[in-house]
Amino acid sequence: MNNVTIYDQERVDDLLTHDLHIIQSDEVFSFSMDAVLLARFASVPKYGKILDLCTGNGVIPLLLSTRTKANIEGIEIQPRLADMARRSVELNELTDKILIREGDLRELVKETGHGIYDAITVNPPYMPLKGGDVKLNTHQAIARHEIHCSLEEVVASAMRLVRPGGKVSMVHKPQRLGEIITVLRQYRLEPKLIRFVHPRAGAESNIVLIEALRDGKPDMRVLPPLIVYNENGQYCPEIMDIYYGPKEGRS
Amino acid sequence: MNNVTIYDQERVDDLLTHDLHIIQSDEVFSFSMDAVLLARFASVPKYGKILDLCTGNGVIPLLLSTRTKANIEGIEIQPRLADMARRSVELNELTDKILIREGDLRELVKETGHGIYDAITVNPPYMPLKGGDVKLNTHQAIARHEIHCSLEEVVASAMRLVRPGGKVSMVHKPQRLGEIITVLRQYRLEPKLIRFVHPRAGAESNIVLIEALRDGKPDMRVLPPLIVYNENGQYCPEIMDIYYGPKEGRS
Repeated sequence: MNNVTIYDQERVDDLLTHDLHIIQSDEVFSFSMDAVLLARFASVPKYGKILDLCTGNGVIPLLLSTRTKANIEGIEIQPRLADMARRSVELNELTDKILIREGDLRELVKETGHGIYDAITVNPPYMPLKGGDVKLNTHQAIARHEIHCSLEEVVASAMRLVRPGGKVSMVHKPQRLGEIITVLRQYRLEPKLIRFVHPRAGAESNIVLIEALRDGKPDMRVLPPLIVYNENGQYCPEIMDIYYGPKEGRS
Repeated sequence: MNNVTIYDQERVDDLLTHDLHIIQSDEVFSFSMDAVLLARFASVPKYGKILDLCTGNGVIPLLLSTRTKANIEGIEIQPRLADMARRSVELNELTDKILIREGDLRELVKETGHGIYDAITVNPPYMPLKGGDVKLNTHQAIARHEIHCSLEEVVASAMRLVRPGGKVSMVHKPQRLGEIITVLRQYRLEPKLIRFVHPRAGAESNIVLIEALRDGKPDMRVLPPLIVYNENGQYCPEIMDIYYGPKEGRS
């Protein structure tokens, strides 16, 4: 590990796989299970270019780096988070593989040009922005609410940035599945693969993973449900594999 | 049971609940598990009017009749099937509760007027019509392929026939979920409840149940997965309940 600056109220957490570490802060941003699930669910090319939108503290690029030789970029609008992500990339000695951009994803295509990424991942803000029910100006509110970009803006940007035949993978809340599917298809990102995550076997889904193919034909596969906890409140084996890698590889 | 005519190559099957029986024919039409699942999944009002589109041999109206005091109608475009359905209604002495219409669902609103049903169910043809890959003129082809009406025509008709605030429940193939959700929302039928059926715990879904609310707001619930067979190849308890009613009531 490289030495990097760690500020007050930040901590360095172990990502529990491939000796990766990440800078987090409960007051600013710490990643959720959703990001980990997306980083395992997303189809990634072996080589080429991957982009993670709304990258936060860079957890998805870090995790993806264990699965591919592709160049990975992340873009984050909040300078504080982009800086955290950059320091985590440096900490893990991954600066030759991961580039963190600070900026507005809606403007990125002007810099990069159209259709240059082979795959895009995104764990966007889940909550629509309604009137004054959100405290603006907090890092967490920006990560969770559609303050800086709406679902449609995320999808529209992803469509412009991904190449034809490229894949866009998203994690979101099932509550918004109707809108998600409509908007993806509106922007020629055809949903091809979907997986629902349920906290327990008998519970409603609280996370959805969805992968769309730019210019694909309609044909959806709905994968087996992913159940998080067994009846004893312990992680199910597949969740253990997702967090720690397959059993053979666990230390 | 009333006495009704049973033609050659027809048989009378036990619906295994509430002493209901149904006229079937392997050459013409026999119902599938999908119809049974829909008849249990659909929200039905206690009173009022329910309509089953693409009713086939009337299996869904027959099963719904055990759950509600509402008047139930079914519409079927194939005269042979509509006749089978009518005879089954008579056989079960349900002519005061179930009306089978023979006709084209796309034309029905001209007879009934707009928005007169409290709930609509539909188990439509699953397969899109592509060029010449379907033998026309067979009863089964019409029931399975979009020969007489497309998904969009079914949904557009349902929207016209259901009252604002009424519910439309559909069973379909997950492969077409993207189109289904897009078309429902296009016709102001907001998907609110969805359930995926998986043949086994580790298998992809092969049936989807979806319920939409006319003029509803976006907010989807994804129910726990419904698994058909356990690891020994036997029906899971919930499937037994759906077929035979809850255990207490089984004879």
